[in-house]
Amino acid sequence: MRWFALILCLLSVMSYADNHKTSTAEKPMPTQIAPLAHQVYFWLKNPDSKEDQAKLIEGIKTLAAIEQVRGIHIGVPASTEKRDVVDNSYAVSELLFFDNAADEHAYQIHPIHKAFVDNYSHLWSKVVVYDSVSVK
Amino acid sequence: MRWFALILCLLSVMSYADNHKTSTAEKPMPTQIAPLAHQVYFWLKNPDSKEDQAKLIEGIKTLAAIEQVRGIHIGVPASTEKRDVVDNSYAVSELLFFDNAADEHAYQIHPIHKAFVDNYSHLWSKVVVYDSVSVK
Repeated sequence: MRWFALILCLLSVMSYADNHKTSTAEKPMPTQIAPLAHQVYFWLKNPDSKEDQAKLIEGIKTLAAIEQVRGIHIGVPASTEKRDVVDNSYAVSELLFFDNAADEHAYQIHPIHKAFVDNYSHLWSKVVVYDSVSVK
Repeated sequence: MRWFALILCLLSVMSYADNHKTSTAEKPMPTQIAPLAHQVYFWLKNPDSKEDQAKLIEGIKTLAAIEQVRGIHIGVPASTEKRDVVDNSYAVSELLFFDNAADEHAYQIHPIHKAFVDNYSHLWSKVVVYDSVSVK
């Protein structure tokens, strides 16, 4: 029984150490963000319509259910300092992370993504996309 | 001793369960990505220079040391499908996450960021920045 207790004690310590290690993942740093960032900016047909902005955000939220999506950040222009280089003319931003380009393609042809385009594309006048793959 | 073993056993199970819970943070989803995304795209003065691209990436990597930075993704155009809406003309992308606009401002005036601009801005011809704050 002493050996049994000792082994359990060791397992507790190992499990705690492993837990402590992964908990730092809560602040994502380079290795914890999936390599492919799909960054999309939307301009609305009715730029001042808070209702259309909210509808589009509602639509983008549905994309999180697509299995290839590894992370999602849906945003609106932040109240950071106005500078010449900062473009805050868009209405909604969508940032999705994928493991690779094949997964991004699977997302593009996924029924949920197709339904999103069908149901919400009437809201936007312009879309700009940047697909970036992380460097080591 | 039996009670001791039983308590250790319970601790093992609890620790394992907690570990299992936090390990899902390795795939960052909305709540695990800091709210403010600072998305920057750089075009080089010498667009075909792989050397200048590598130098700029080296410079951007120094920004990860700034204490307010909650996440970083440094990228180059991905080999996703070419579409009219996709802009892959930039050379390097930089995506930084912050807790709020005050932290982003602290980053802007941080000596490491100022040194980055001083030492690497001769490489780029154009910069476009999008600052997005996540929606609930």
